Amino acid sequence: MDYQTIINSLKKLEANLFQTDFLLTWEKSEDQIKQILYVAEALRYFHRHHISSRCFDSGLAVSIFRDKSTRTRFSFSSAANFVGLGVQELDEEKSQMTHGETLRETANMISFFTEVIGIRDDIYLGTGHAYMKAVAEALDEGFQAGVLNQRPGLINLQCDIDHPTQSMADLLHLKTHFGSLENLRGKKLAMTWAYSPSYGKPLSVPQGIIGLMTRFGMNVSLAYPEGYHLIPEVTGLAKKNAAQSGGSFTIVDSMDEAFKDADMVYPKSWAPYTVMEKRTELFRNNDDQGLKALEKECLAKNARFKNWECTEEKMKLTRKGQALYMHCLPADISNVSCKQGEVQETVFEKYRIATYKEAGFKPYIIASMMINARFKDPVRLLEEMKKRNIKRVGF
Amino acid sequence: MDYQTIINSLKKLEANLFQTDFLLTWEKSEDQIKQILYVAEALRYFHRHHISSRCFDSGLAVSIFRDKSTRTRFSFSSAANFVGLGVQELDEEKSQMTHGETLRETANMISFFTEVIGIRDDIYLGTGHAYMKAVAEALDEGFQAGVLNQRPGLINLQCDIDHPTQSMADLLHLKTHFGSLENLRGKKLAMTWAYSPSYGKPLSVPQGIIGLMTRFGMNVSLAYPEGYHLIPEVTGLAKKNAAQSGGSFTIVDSMDEAFKDADMVYPKSWAPYTVMEKRTELFRNNDDQGLKALEKECLAKNARFKNWECTEEKMKLTRKGQALYMHCLPADISNVSCKQGEVQETVFEKYRIATYKEAGFKPYIIASMMINARFKDPVRLLEEMKKRNIKRVGF
Amino acid sequence: MDYQTIINSLKKLEANLFQTDFLLTWEKSEDQIKQILYVAEALRYFHRHHISSRCFDSGLAVSIFRDKSTRTRFSFSSAANFVGLGVQELDEEKSQMTHGETLRETANMISFFTEVIGIRDDIYLGTGHAYMKAVAEALDEGFQAGVLNQRPGLINLQCDIDHPTQSMADLLHLKTHFGSLENLRGKKLAMTWAYSPSYGKPLSVPQGIIGLMTRFGMNVSLAYPEGYHLIPEVTGLAKKNAAQSGGSFTIVDSMDEAFKDADMVYPKSWAPYTVMEKRTELFRNNDDQGLKALEKECLAKNARFKNWECTEEKMKLTRKGQALYMHCLPADISNVSCKQGEVQETVFEKYRIATYKEAGFKPYIIASMMINARFKDPVRLLEEMKKRNIKRVGF
Repeated sequence: MDYQTIINSLKKLEANLFQTDFLLTWEKSEDQIKQILYVAEALRYFHRHHISSRCFDSGLAVSIFRDKSTRTRFSFSSAANFVGLGVQELDEEKSQMTHGETLRETANMISFFTEVIGIRDDIYLGTGHAYMKAVAEALDEGFQAGVLNQRPGLINLQCDIDHPTQSMADLLHLKTHFGSLENLRGKKLAMTWAYSPSYGKPLSVPQGIIGLMTRFGMNVSLAYPEGYHLIPEVTGLAKKNAAQSGGSFTIVDSMDEAFKDADMVYPKSWAPYTVMEKRTELFRNNDDQGLKALEKECLAKNARFKNWECTEEKMKLTRKGQALYMHCLPADISNVSCKQGEVQETVFEKYRIATYKEAGFKPYIIASMMINARFKDPVRLLEEMKKRNIKRVGF
Repeated sequence: MDYQTIINSLKKLEANLFQTDFLLTWEKSEDQIKQILYVAEALRYFHRHHISSRCFDSGLAVSIFRDKSTRTRFSFSSAANFVGLGVQELDEEKSQMTHGETLRETANMISFFTEVIGIRDDIYLGTGHAYMKAVAEALDEGFQAGVLNQRPGLINLQCDIDHPTQSMADLLHLKTHFGSLENLRGKKLAMTWAYSPSYGKPLSVPQGIIGLMTRFGMNVSLAYPEGYHLIPEVTGLAKKNAAQSGGSFTIVDSMDEAFKDADMVYPKSWAPYTVMEKRTELFRNNDDQGLKALEKECLAKNARFKNWECTEEKMKLTRKGQALYMHCLPADISNVSCKQGEVQETVFEKYRIATYKEAGFKPYIIASMMINARFKDPVRLLEEMKKRNIKRVGF
Repeated sequence: MDYQTIINSLKKLEANLFQTDFLLTWEKSEDQIKQILYVAEALRYFHRHHISSRCFDSGLAVSIFRDKSTRTRFSFSSAANFVGLGVQELDEEKSQMTHGETLRETANMISFFTEVIGIRDDIYLGTGHAYMKAVAEALDEGFQAGVLNQRPGLINLQCDIDHPTQSMADLLHLKTHFGSLENLRGKKLAMTWAYSPSYGKPLSVPQGIIGLMTRFGMNVSLAYPEGYHLIPEVTGLAKKNAAQSGGSFTIVDSMDEAFKDADMVYPKSWAPYTVMEKRTELFRNNDDQGLKALEKECLAKNARFKNWECTEEKMKLTRKGQALYMHCLPADISNVSCKQGEVQETVFEKYRIATYKEAGFKPYIIASMMINARFKDPVRLLEEMKKRNIKRVGF
């Protein structure tokens, strides 16, 4: 979309995200989702045209990573810098953060000058989203009680249920690739499990994808081997979404079937749901022996499905053999990052640059979430930025 | 105080803090203390009214933490960001920093573009303050010799003797709570030891409190069990301060006696002085066995005083049973953060939000120290900030 | 040079460094070297006169340290802050970075909003420079393919071959000390090995010095004991440079001979070339036993040359006994940082402040490299900065 179209599209929306958190895409209306997308596109336009998007004179963006992360860390830092916020990371030991009092207290202690907080907590089923809700409540209390002069906006940088910055970036990638959201109607997206010699990968990416893409009239086909199902609530939701949006949502147990006539494919490994459940339990009990046994069992289980690999041959099944390959990166590439993995080397190489571009939408999505959470009228803000026309480099 | 009162009060002061360090509150005149407080209040006014306090176009705020810290780290980063400085942390291994040459050299190497340096070094008796003085001397030399274009201001973020950013934040909390510094005259503050199942907590908080609060006409009652006395020089100083300010300073060996008719209570654990001395010695000799034995001994000693807990019953002893409970956080809350600790759960809950607010003054105190150390005329600066009226969020 | 002379000198140069990396000084023309120096001098003038050098409204400076570093980390952060960039460090595990796909991918993932990337990778022969070239290629690909909106400039913060930010800072120190580059013609510089009780120090400092100083008409004398030679390509290059610039380059095996009539001396330890080669091999094979044996062997070898120490006596051999002592710091000072080391305590103390000043040029050199890599016309930029005249502190 050119800049003026973005602004015109934004003006048509009835969306208000001021003072709200972004935890799950399905808590947001279609207009709110679009507002995040369009503001992100405007910011991308600004960056490409060397126009400054700095709208915070000062203030902090706090990140809490309860799992290792380089890419998301950089996306969050980049977005914060882009809009003018300083970044401060919180490295609390897990034990210090988990019990009630400390969490409430810490949430306030880190927020006196804070505009947004990004949290990644995706390791255990049933904890990440709950943790974010608890932080949100603590911030509400602190703001209402006058401890905080502003209510920092919370951004989910991946939890056990959803990965909204990823799925939204993926959606913007699709919008850009296919020309418009409208063009996505009737397109078939294959979200399929793929083999990887690793264990314990979260379910939040496939869940985020089926929870979001089903809202835009796509035909989403979810494929996985027996035992690798997702959280039932999310698949239920995907079904409902599809019905409402005029698309479809099906679950199949064959990669080939999902790939058949697909316009885009998203082959990606995740852990079996029951393994994730057991793992959460074992972690809670600090059962190292049990964890090792579980890893062994899980890897053995995975190994039965080595043929779930995105190969040249499988790609031929897709629409005209030309489906758009997607991945949240890093992918497990056969003969590159592992002996055998999610995708054949030649397939990945063909779409490598496309996956880099896909990842490139994420910082804009996060920056858009930051702005939408903290500005009452983001459209007016964008127009003022355009008019102000401060150079991003030089002056 | 409303904004104009703050400015008028500031104009009456005869204080100059430009190019000075803030290491111990008792090295500062009453006017200098007030200047830090009032500038902090003006900055708080700006933050609440969304007015930018950015007065550094560029420059670094360097933090050196020789002890783990989340809260102080965030307070320092927040303050730096608030006034426009970038934060850079120094993570030198202790061994590299301790001997003379390296310290002089490092102090200069980290300061070429640096405006302020914050140091936390509170673990061993006799080292923290000495270390800060050594850094200050190295910076003086570097500045005079033309190595540095500016003399960075040093801020004590907690040493073995004082914790000025804490005590000053606490004072501003009291000033805000009771309406004015004048209103604090004749009020009784109970700074008392409290039981905690931990070991080696520094003496700097109680020392900082008795060293500062005795200067404003308060009746400060210090209470601790036998063997838990503070550095004698500081209690001597508190006595002298009280005499000069028209307040009083007494040491008692009963929590009840201290709480009697108190207007504010500050129950907080610290290590026995002699334990801190032995510990410093054992650390120097890398005597791990000795340290373990000392910890055991100290915990056993502490356990004899489990009744030093701030309970509902004890709170009833205070003025109308309504004393303001204070804490530097995190508190050891019985049945919450430990089985038995410094304060009963219900007492803490009643004052929880008040302690959060108390903590909320710290970033403004630090920002004020930064500004006072680097600007010749902070009052003029504040007036220009007000006039300039740049929005902190948006434009 | 006064400010106007700097600008006039810059205007005479035919140099373009826009969109280029700074990896090795010998890849740059004399005019390009001068442009880095003069812009650094202008920035130093601005800092001393409290004029803001902020020319990036937003954007990141990413640092990748594959070796521990405090000084270079601070120099890079300081420079970034000075020109307006935010700093983000990448702490990838080595294993994740080394193989092809991950490196290409990571280089792009960290660069969406990135203007400069600084890399330090100096541990193994044959890897550091190669790694930087690979990152550069990945960035070229990403920029050309439209993944990145800008091509971040790469700055070598020390590799296995060169240490350009050090050698350029040293050159600016010499220029400042002796008055002009022209004044360096005919001066004798002794770059000599010195004893240290440590092992595995990189060759990049001496290589950087002989590769750069030979271009300005100096008589460079390189001295080392048998077995401590440098990479042959670099000594060959130094010889060629000297011939072209009207200076000279000689290799001797005696510290005394190098010091004889020297105008400046640079006594500094480094590891024997063959040890570095073996070490690289052993590391690749994770041969811990072999590494320990090699360290022992190397330290024993070093110990045979304890008389390679920069003593008062040796200093008397230099021109009028007054040669300028240089060091990249930290120096191994006898009786201070070790029992016996590179330099006698009294010699170091005499030049201590001079070495601090020498180090003080580095942040300006790095800031200059950042600006030159990202601005088409740095001279115009400087003139606009001067005219704009924003105060660095206050407003």
